[in-house]
Amino acid sequence: MSLSAYLDDVRGLVLDEIQALVPTGRFRPVLYDLMLDYPMRESKMLRPALCIAACAGLGGRIESVLRTAAVLELYHNAFLVHDDIEDGSELRRGKPTLHRAHGIPVAINVGDAMLALALRPLLDNMKELGLGTAIQVMEHVARMAKESAEGQALELAWVRDNDWTHDDNAYLHMVWKKTGWYTFMTPVLIGATVAGLDRRRAAHLRRFASLLGMGFQIQDDVLNLVGDADAYGKEIAGDLHEGKHTLILVHALKRCSAADRARAVEILGLPREQKTDADVAWLLDLTHVTGAIDSAAEVARTAALSAARILAEATYLPASAHRGFLEALVEYVVVRDR
Amino acid sequence: MSLSAYLDDVRGLVLDEIQALVPTGRFRPVLYDLMLDYPMRESKMLRPALCIAACAGLGGRIESVLRTAAVLELYHNAFLVHDDIEDGSELRRGKPTLHRAHGIPVAINVGDAMLALALRPLLDNMKELGLGTAIQVMEHVARMAKESAEGQALELAWVRDNDWTHDDNAYLHMVWKKTGWYTFMTPVLIGATVAGLDRRRAAHLRRFASLLGMGFQIQDDVLNLVGDADAYGKEIAGDLHEGKHTLILVHALKRCSAADRARAVEILGLPREQKTDADVAWLLDLTHVTGAIDSAAEVARTAALSAARILAEATYLPASAHRGFLEALVEYVVVRDR
Repeated sequence: MSLSAYLDDVRGLVLDEIQALVPTGRFRPVLYDLMLDYPMRESKMLRPALCIAACAGLGGRIESVLRTAAVLELYHNAFLVHDDIEDGSELRRGKPTLHRAHGIPVAINVGDAMLALALRPLLDNMKELGLGTAIQVMEHVARMAKESAEGQALELAWVRDNDWTHDDNAYLHMVWKKTGWYTFMTPVLIGATVAGLDRRRAAHLRRFASLLGMGFQIQDDVLNLVGDADAYGKEIAGDLHEGKHTLILVHALKRCSAADRARAVEILGLPREQKTDADVAWLLDLTHVTGAIDSAAEVARTAALSAARILAEATYLPASAHRGFLEALVEYVVVRDR
Repeated sequence: MSLSAYLDDVRGLVLDEIQALVPTGRFRPVLYDLMLDYPMRESKMLRPALCIAACAGLGGRIESVLRTAAVLELYHNAFLVHDDIEDGSELRRGKPTLHRAHGIPVAINVGDAMLALALRPLLDNMKELGLGTAIQVMEHVARMAKESAEGQALELAWVRDNDWTHDDNAYLHMVWKKTGWYTFMTPVLIGATVAGLDRRRAAHLRRFASLLGMGFQIQDDVLNLVGDADAYGKEIAGDLHEGKHTLILVHALKRCSAADRARAVEILGLPREQKTDADVAWLLDLTHVTGAIDSAAEVARTAALSAARILAEATYLPASAHRGFLEALVEYVVVRDR
């Protein structure tokens, strides 16, 4: 089964579950339809897919983890709604962002409601999973909340202060917290918990997820600068326009001259609309001539290969379409269109 | 013990607890200090006080409900941070709002983090309260999240559409959901649950809290229009500048001529900065000449007197400083500076 076929299957299941989670009735038009807006748009649903793959791959029932997988997707979409306000984005998945369509007050409230309402289905888990497992799942969500809030806070402080003094380790630690826990480790850990995997093996599988996440994020940033716009679906070098903190820029700024570094930091600190195309072209050139794109891609590749090695050790995870999905994700990072 | 002395005592306990809930370490400056900013500013802490008064008044230990009381206050402050962005407010409790001081992206994230991190202490409740009680507390929080999100969504939709077609019942239902559950019913129910009050009596006490909340909110809106600015601490008629939906305006719009109604709705729909002082003075006059301020105040007084009657029936709540606080709150609504 191909990566996209697996993701499509998950998407169908998760969309049904999300719709079942959301109340019907008179608050539909003012609140719940808006909560459903982003999830119903085209998306990969990577987090629920990881959650389901880990659970089902370990012998758990898909139905038993589906509600939590849907909660993770709702959570994620809540943050997307708020991120779009924070970034002043106009479009999300090809349509106007929620705050463009309904105003910032409504969009902030919809995101808050999605976060706050996640508690209900996590409590309902108790009936089907039993108390112990349902509580462990909530513990995972609480850990995810803490790690990703801290990672996001760190990155926002760098952006606010136009601070580019962090080295590789500081940058990777931020990604580990912000992306690693949120998108990779927590979904996999929840799947493992629902399937009843023991703690030692769950920690092993968490290392796989952590390395896969690292590789995935860095590769994503590489593709933003070198990818074919059609294949990737976003504007080329959008990250440079935005001034996003990436391993590529950390590498480029470490290697360039002091004068170039000063100029780069000055450009990166400009608001998006004040960066000229020439500024961005110059930054893009800097990432090429310093070899930063290649070296960052190499870090992504190394992380993915380490993830592959750990997955190869995971004999507790028998061959199946679910394990195949995890293997295909690793492969995707290693060989993705470059 | 006076109302303010009780609130001061609660404030000291809750501030210590909030500080204990918030992690120390390197994420303090980028995240946790910002989470503490609003709670550390001067405030009434009405929600924790209701929670503690219900629990301790019913014979529960204050220590057993303190963590949850602190969570309610954190939750509330998260919404204040987001409300200030939604309303474009410059000041909160006499100091710059969080988004003025740190930018909108950081402020949205701090509010999100406060909401998301509330799960951790609710899970920690299990150790001290036992599984059953801790889960019931989470059920109360989940209900509060749903009711207040729906109430807030309804009000935001009215604001977005400049919709003034709702009657008394529709307005009061919105307040019941948005303010009643969030500020009054949930804190009291959590206190009752931790103290071990049975369901029937808890439902009785919830009716008290519901009526008190109704009276409190309407009286607050009355005082915004007629209060002495120094005594109340906010600009006079700020609600009219803001175009806030109040029972007073519902009454005024029902009673005035069609022409006045059309003019009032037009003014109310203007952005705050486009409303002239003459516009607001005209609106204020309309609320007086239609008798809307008096009739709304009468609704508040009637609700508070009903709350007093229910509290008088509550023989399961023996005389104490805690019961005295609840009685003083009712009294406050009935006789508050007018």
